[in-house]
Amino acid sequence: MLQPSTVYLNGHFMSKDRASISPEDRGFYFADGVYEVIKYYKGKPFCFSEHMSRLKNSLSGIRINYTELEKLQGVCEALIGINQLNDNYAAVYIQITRGVAERTHRFPSDDVKPTLYARAFPMPPFIEEMRKGVCIMTREDIRWLLCNIKSIALLPNTLLFEEVAEQGAFECMLIRNGFVTEATHSNIMAVKSGGVYTHPDSNFVLPGITKSIVIKLCKEIDIKVTEKPIKAAEIYDYDEWFITGTGSEIVPVVKINDAIIGNGKPGPVTRLLQKAFLNITYEKLAGEKIVISDW
Amino acid sequence: MLQPSTVYLNGHFMSKDRASISPEDRGFYFADGVYEVIKYYKGKPFCFSEHMSRLKNSLSGIRINYTELEKLQGVCEALIGINQLNDNYAAVYIQITRGVAERTHRFPSDDVKPTLYARAFPMPPFIEEMRKGVCIMTREDIRWLLCNIKSIALLPNTLLFEEVAEQGAFECMLIRNGFVTEATHSNIMAVKSGGVYTHPDSNFVLPGITKSIVIKLCKEIDIKVTEKPIKAAEIYDYDEWFITGTGSEIVPVVKINDAIIGNGKPGPVTRLLQKAFLNITYEKLAGEKIVISDW
Repeated sequence: MLQPSTVYLNGHFMSKDRASISPEDRGFYFADGVYEVIKYYKGKPFCFSEHMSRLKNSLSGIRINYTELEKLQGVCEALIGINQLNDNYAAVYIQITRGVAERTHRFPSDDVKPTLYARAFPMPPFIEEMRKGVCIMTREDIRWLLCNIKSIALLPNTLLFEEVAEQGAFECMLIRNGFVTEATHSNIMAVKSGGVYTHPDSNFVLPGITKSIVIKLCKEIDIKVTEKPIKAAEIYDYDEWFITGTGSEIVPVVKINDAIIGNGKPGPVTRLLQKAFLNITYEKLAGEKIVISDW
Repeated sequence: MLQPSTVYLNGHFMSKDRASISPEDRGFYFADGVYEVIKYYKGKPFCFSEHMSRLKNSLSGIRINYTELEKLQGVCEALIGINQLNDNYAAVYIQITRGVAERTHRFPSDDVKPTLYARAFPMPPFIEEMRKGVCIMTREDIRWLLCNIKSIALLPNTLLFEEVAEQGAFECMLIRNGFVTEATHSNIMAVKSGGVYTHPDSNFVLPGITKSIVIKLCKEIDIKVTEKPIKAAEIYDYDEWFITGTGSEIVPVVKINDAIIGNGKPGPVTRLLQKAFLNITYEKLAGEKIVISDW
């Protein structure tokens, strides 16, 4: 796929090849930054204000004082437009770091300005995965204890994801102290006896925006939601599993490690939620009707 | 202090101002890299091969295949020389990331070359701190579970260090599950009844090179070393505490949080070890005799 070539760095639009970061950027030295990814459905952002509000929380969680958040909507729209993604399903990635300073663990002085980097890229739906469901694998959650902050310190996430992806898994479900937390770049939810279960927002999981939308949809269609950590030992007692995320939206899980979930096909509650989610995104925002039963 | 201006990036020496990293470097996106800091005592490296061996372990711990490790000694020496640090106490910082690639959690293909960045800078001894001792504070160890890898995912370290440094502390002692692990950028050791105690090498602590030298020195001067985690609840039962690191070398701790350690002055075992350490570094490598009793 041809990658869009115009990015935004510290107030300027430029060709991606010309964008350069100082090796003294604290993002490069210390993973001292946070990020967001916002999906655009044919030019229309989904949950933009929720993403901004989480970005604000992440920034305040690591004490970066970024004063130009209100400009970001314009930047994102421009990136989508300039890169001719207005008629596509796309996303904008935004990263803010503490800026460039002599390397020391201490924060730099207040006159050091944060670095803002943003880029747009195509983000087509995971059609096949949404239709058939995917296999995931479990690993120990080795991440830090402030997973509610969407930080760029993603080394554990990439290591764990790579490990299971090499074995064909779509995601890696994380287990901390005997409980399911989330996945390396998605939240994870389960279904038992018609009710939906997921880890409550806490320092162990990212407060997922798609997850929060799914919870809202559950309430609208009268599905009971229980927010409590699921015991790893009871993973296979659940009828359905699915992952949620800005990119994956709602992807059914039909196999965890070597065990088939349910009858090996996406379950009815997952299907209901997919239908409702695709309705408020592809259909409402982009005017494209995706009918699950036809898949 | 005037900062040296020549750095090394991917095979080339250049002015620091001209050094630039792609925002698509996985070090910037994912903290997907490792580092080392090697001290040079008037042009003579201390424990160079130990640092290289740890770097090798860190690289293999995150599966970066870096094939030019044997060139690094020459690069470091050149950086020290070009930046006129041969007559100083200085250090070389080396960072290796997985390289530049389109952002995805999966590792890039094998033809993506790792990024190598290195720079030299003055690293004078912490004379006052070594003489008088320092105050440190404790915080919960919120880092990931592979602290034996010297990764650049240092966001938790900087957050915790900043927090206590703002209150005047020299370092932040980390407590995980009720046990002392290490500090944000040092190892930590204690003394009781003449014996030295420290956390054993494990996934919870960096295998400190200065720490390993101190253990060796202890054996030479007949001090018993016990490598086991110290209970946080028993911190104040120890007679002496000190931190170790490439930069801090051996710095006595005379206060932890609000409590004075011992009589508030560096203890005798710490002094013995400082003397032995300064002998094999400043005196043996740089010909400079630093007499502790004269401080």
